[in-house]
Amino acid sequence: MHLRVINPNTTSAMTAKIGEAARRVGAPGTRISATQPDSGPVSIESHFDEAISAVGVLEEVLTGEREDVDAYVIACFGDPGLMAARELTRAPVIGIAEAAFHMATLISTRFSIVTTLGRTGIIAEHLLENYGFRHHCRRVRAAEIPVLDLEENGSVAMSRIIDECRRARDEDSIGAIVLGCGGMADLTGAIANEVGLPVIEGVTAAVKLAEAVVGLGLGTSKYGDLAFPRPKAFTGRFERLSGLAPSR
Amino acid sequence: MHLRVINPNTTSAMTAKIGEAARRVGAPGTRISATQPDSGPVSIESHFDEAISAVGVLEEVLTGEREDVDAYVIACFGDPGLMAARELTRAPVIGIAEAAFHMATLISTRFSIVTTLGRTGIIAEHLLENYGFRHHCRRVRAAEIPVLDLEENGSVAMSRIIDECRRARDEDSIGAIVLGCGGMADLTGAIANEVGLPVIEGVTAAVKLAEAVVGLGLGTSKYGDLAFPRPKAFTGRFERLSGLAPSR
Amino acid sequence: MHLRVINPNTTSAMTAKIGEAARRVGAPGTRISATQPDSGPVSIESHFDEAISAVGVLEEVLTGEREDVDAYVIACFGDPGLMAARELTRAPVIGIAEAAFHMATLISTRFSIVTTLGRTGIIAEHLLENYGFRHHCRRVRAAEIPVLDLEENGSVAMSRIIDECRRARDEDSIGAIVLGCGGMADLTGAIANEVGLPVIEGVTAAVKLAEAVVGLGLGTSKYGDLAFPRPKAFTGRFERLSGLAPSR
Amino acid sequence: MHLRVINPNTTSAMTAKIGEAARRVGAPGTRISATQPDSGPVSIESHFDEAISAVGVLEEVLTGEREDVDAYVIACFGDPGLMAARELTRAPVIGIAEAAFHMATLISTRFSIVTTLGRTGIIAEHLLENYGFRHHCRRVRAAEIPVLDLEENGSVAMSRIIDECRRARDEDSIGAIVLGCGGMADLTGAIANEVGLPVIEGVTAAVKLAEAVVGLGLGTSKYGDLAFPRPKAFTGRFERLSGLAPSR
Amino acid sequence: MHLRVINPNTTSAMTAKIGEAARRVGAPGTRISATQPDSGPVSIESHFDEAISAVGVLEEVLTGEREDVDAYVIACFGDPGLMAARELTRAPVIGIAEAAFHMATLISTRFSIVTTLGRTGIIAEHLLENYGFRHHCRRVRAAEIPVLDLEENGSVAMSRIIDECRRARDEDSIGAIVLGCGGMADLTGAIANEVGLPVIEGVTAAVKLAEAVVGLGLGTSKYGDLAFPRPKAFTGRFERLSGLAPSR
Amino acid sequence: MHLRVINPNTTSAMTAKIGEAARRVGAPGTRISATQPDSGPVSIESHFDEAISAVGVLEEVLTGEREDVDAYVIACFGDPGLMAARELTRAPVIGIAEAAFHMATLISTRFSIVTTLGRTGIIAEHLLENYGFRHHCRRVRAAEIPVLDLEENGSVAMSRIIDECRRARDEDSIGAIVLGCGGMADLTGAIANEVGLPVIEGVTAAVKLAEAVVGLGLGTSKYGDLAFPRPKAFTGRFERLSGLAPSR
Repeated sequence: MHLRVINPNTTSAMTAKIGEAARRVGAPGTRISATQPDSGPVSIESHFDEAISAVGVLEEVLTGEREDVDAYVIACFGDPGLMAARELTRAPVIGIAEAAFHMATLISTRFSIVTTLGRTGIIAEHLLENYGFRHHCRRVRAAEIPVLDLEENGSVAMSRIIDECRRARDEDSIGAIVLGCGGMADLTGAIANEVGLPVIEGVTAAVKLAEAVVGLGLGTSKYGDLAFPRPKAFTGRFERLSGLAPSR
Repeated sequence: MHLRVINPNTTSAMTAKIGEAARRVGAPGTRISATQPDSGPVSIESHFDEAISAVGVLEEVLTGEREDVDAYVIACFGDPGLMAARELTRAPVIGIAEAAFHMATLISTRFSIVTTLGRTGIIAEHLLENYGFRHHCRRVRAAEIPVLDLEENGSVAMSRIIDECRRARDEDSIGAIVLGCGGMADLTGAIANEVGLPVIEGVTAAVKLAEAVVGLGLGTSKYGDLAFPRPKAFTGRFERLSGLAPSR
Repeated sequence: MHLRVINPNTTSAMTAKIGEAARRVGAPGTRISATQPDSGPVSIESHFDEAISAVGVLEEVLTGEREDVDAYVIACFGDPGLMAARELTRAPVIGIAEAAFHMATLISTRFSIVTTLGRTGIIAEHLLENYGFRHHCRRVRAAEIPVLDLEENGSVAMSRIIDECRRARDEDSIGAIVLGCGGMADLTGAIANEVGLPVIEGVTAAVKLAEAVVGLGLGTSKYGDLAFPRPKAFTGRFERLSGLAPSR
Repeated sequence: MHLRVINPNTTSAMTAKIGEAARRVGAPGTRISATQPDSGPVSIESHFDEAISAVGVLEEVLTGEREDVDAYVIACFGDPGLMAARELTRAPVIGIAEAAFHMATLISTRFSIVTTLGRTGIIAEHLLENYGFRHHCRRVRAAEIPVLDLEENGSVAMSRIIDECRRARDEDSIGAIVLGCGGMADLTGAIANEVGLPVIEGVTAAVKLAEAVVGLGLGTSKYGDLAFPRPKAFTGRFERLSGLAPSR
Repeated sequence: MHLRVINPNTTSAMTAKIGEAARRVGAPGTRISATQPDSGPVSIESHFDEAISAVGVLEEVLTGEREDVDAYVIACFGDPGLMAARELTRAPVIGIAEAAFHMATLISTRFSIVTTLGRTGIIAEHLLENYGFRHHCRRVRAAEIPVLDLEENGSVAMSRIIDECRRARDEDSIGAIVLGCGGMADLTGAIANEVGLPVIEGVTAAVKLAEAVVGLGLGTSKYGDLAFPRPKAFTGRFERLSGLAPSR
Repeated sequence: MHLRVINPNTTSAMTAKIGEAARRVGAPGTRISATQPDSGPVSIESHFDEAISAVGVLEEVLTGEREDVDAYVIACFGDPGLMAARELTRAPVIGIAEAAFHMATLISTRFSIVTTLGRTGIIAEHLLENYGFRHHCRRVRAAEIPVLDLEENGSVAMSRIIDECRRARDEDSIGAIVLGCGGMADLTGAIANEVGLPVIEGVTAAVKLAEAVVGLGLGTSKYGDLAFPRPKAFTGRFERLSGLAPSR
């Protein structure tokens, strides 16, 4: 199967890192390609960044459909464009926040999230509510580091994340920690070693869930509310989306 | 005050209709301008349409900021881009779904929604959950008419909406009905006359809520999670959004 | 329109203050009268005080109906008698707790409440649950000052409220603060200046919401569960309520 | 122990009936007196009736305190004045709605309510929410009979209640039925015989719960939010409530 | 009536203590017998201990059915085997966790739980959710003492429990404390004296609730989901359960 | 990896069928062994059957631990013994109900369950609540066929299940159906063909989720509430469980 990991931001170093993390856990038969939109924010740290990035995510799915991609991962912790992306394809589309939450509840009864900036906490809270995991998550914590510091200022960022993870472990009555940013995909092992309880990262979790769905012969339901969008006219810069019809 | 009603789709007839509906309820001191994105879907009937339309909504807010707009209404029942729009301005931004829900709970204990297509029901359900009104809404009903039929095929659409509203009244143990589409903004009175219980429409509701917030000297909180986005680089077609900083 | 603000307690200084606060935000066309019951508690700080005060609130609404009042505000943070008051009239009736909650969610994603006495916190909690805002409110805080201290001991009370608001701002991950007592209606501006994030007060919020409902041509639904009470006999001191029938 | 059953309405026939029902289940050591306010509605079928009746309920509790009553039952299915009544005494105070809900969950996993008028359903719904039983109750059903028909028109009322109970049994996937009116206290056995699944009535349930609390040496907590109200001035017709202080 | 208190663990000292506590509150007409399984864990401090103990509980209920027991109490705070036990009998079966929660909500608006080991907190949380009391419980606290320390090391255990109860009282905004272990049944009075707010213990609470259900002529519903299990074959060590049919 | 599928009942034909279904979806590197307890019910259709079966499930996990099993699946839709099983091992343990729910939410927004007997519906409801999926499941439906009819009376059972699935599809506004019994593991494809929307079966779903967890290098958290049980004495027939200590 061909699994496409879409980094919703346009920082290619992060795309590469995310692709590598994904490949480390991919099954033998899984070919993993990592892409990013050509247009959009270099990092995603607000509802605004997310809304803009969703366009790129959706275009990447449309591209993927022409390339017979079998499953998609949206590699930003806010799962930008997830529902819309699912409408565009019969393939499964997995967000890394949802993937991490699902995995966390399979190996623990309660978890905390450690994310980058406090202001993105509300995005995680809204996702927890919509996905049904509000009561499984004890606390959303922030290390207060901008996303790109993970690229440019790795060791300082790492140390602040580990500190916050330790506080979560000691104060939150949890069994696992969820890392709240796709840019932390390469840090999981090191953090887990330092902190001493399971640490779950969404990119890798999403890869395995996507493989699981495909392995069951399942894909996004095209019956009901995730059916292909009704073809229609789009105007102006989005005209190319007009009359979009299912490719398969 | 200058209130801008943003029609998130690009059908100018609908923009005009929405603008008129808004002006009918605007207070004497409220100047209302209705706009629409130059690019995007001609109607919004899916998560995909919504995600694309959000870009246009956000650009309209950025434009509004340069024109000293005092309040914004997002006139599509899915409230596309609402949280992101709020980040861009000190002015209040009101979605028409949220506005209708708030109004409905002020005059009744339980309401039902009558929307266009069944497939958009899940969007309304998710909003109800996030806004806190899940238990106040008895049922999300669909008349199963495409949005643009409201423009092109008005009398048939009208009759199907009224039929569904009557069923809601008779079967749902409710005190009010919420109309689930900005394109129904001109039908409210006629439907209410036929159905005989309060019928709430979001465009007009949002205008009054926006006036209320401004009248209190309040605006979108810039403290915490709706603060202005951190300025950053955007690439490609979105480069013009780079380094965006609060204009006021 | 004629808007009546009902102070549910019988302290006329507070009625005057609340009336002034209401008038400061009333629209040009809104005539605001402030009243209070002739019988009842001088302040409301318990379920018991609330239950007794509800009688006065309802009598004030009945009086208002004879005077063609167009909208009512119940100016105590427990919203005493709200549902019952709505049954008595076609006009909208807005409680100040509910009004403040609605406003807070329009300009922020999460808020905290700062109220007078800790023992009234449970009243606010129950309202949050019934109105749907449980998860929007991070915390109910108390400055531990009796209500009438706001009248008699203003500067000390003020300083304790500001201290508690600052703690809310610094510890609660919120975007706005709701003041939990009608007696704080005159303090909003000063507190907001000191605290530096939006501060929402219910009396003024309710005035604007009442204007909004009336401006839409809406009123309390008389269909279903807020219909006029069935006329019936009342005995003893409540005999005058017998056979009560809608005046309009 | 002396248990006082307070009928919140002023129909003495109903008070007598409720008292008899209570005595039928009272333990040997339980002396049961049934009272009613001297002033208030003859039946309770709306939020308005409830709010007025609460005054009488509270006065009856104050009277009871002077008579060394050991436990109180509030015998109207809306539990009018329950929280306020608890503030006035160290004795337990049990509402018949809450009592019936508690009992129902001890003998079944899901129940339905059969009440008198549809318009009172919302009162039951709000209680279910506040007490935590929303998901234990499948459905609130109404036989659409006015409360006093239970007194005056017994056999017709009985037959409609039984019909509705049968529909609940056959359609709702339940294990028990809760009767939603104190006026049905004498019908429980007959209905249960006809319907063939456990039928729970609140007056009797509340008597046994009150005995249970007293039997444990417990009473209403006077620590925290149900503490005695702060003594204060009441004006006008309620002046006699001024300076109210705990009698024991 | 004959009430059987089943201690789900096999420590006879604890069975004796629980039996005594039960008898102290039993009504004159209530004969109380305390039993324990002949096989199972000596204490219950994990999901595993609970699952094994459930077998013993169910066997005790089957034994009780042959001895015409009228009501059962399951005296471990996790309520092990509760739903299954209810299927086996027309008699009421009450768990001590559920009993304590019910009682706590009748005398206070919010409570905290003080249990033995932190690891069992999740069991209490799951029960709170299923029973509907999630929002009534402020916090689940642990004194971090193994269950059998209550037998062997009483004074140290007692002192740690009292310390934790005091913290609950001072920090949690509660009106009552629930003791989270059947082994604390003899400590209730002493703790309440030290802590100064109502302390609720489940064994005694369950005895009174069981008496209440029996006193109403009610028992576990045999209609629907708690009906007797369909008779069927069991194999191996559980063969004696084959073809189990209702004894009465 | 070695994945053990535990059929909690003792019907070997069902164990064989479940094993085959599991192997059909297992990855190349996954060795799948299917086992069943030597003692317990031949089918699981009640809380009682479930409670007894849990012992066998736990013994199978203990056996598996000695055989270096890498992951476990509990193949009964009530997930009997799931939390307890997780305490016994560092390996992941996946229940088939939870697995099916997780999968369903990854490919649709709302699903319904079609199970065997109506009386087991409450078990599914409780699981949905504890796992967080209450609002994702529209309805729990029963074909009203005993579990063993799936073995002995296949074509009639099949036809009733398909009928119920069609009703779910047509009436429930869903995107997917979850089959609510391990005994349906071989029917999934055929049902999906007949019904025309995704049909999810738990055994296969759980296999893929178990592979996913192992593929991430994760296992059941041994930090906090799923830690190994404290070693202790067990008496009588369960004496062999005494002093149980982690084998790895």
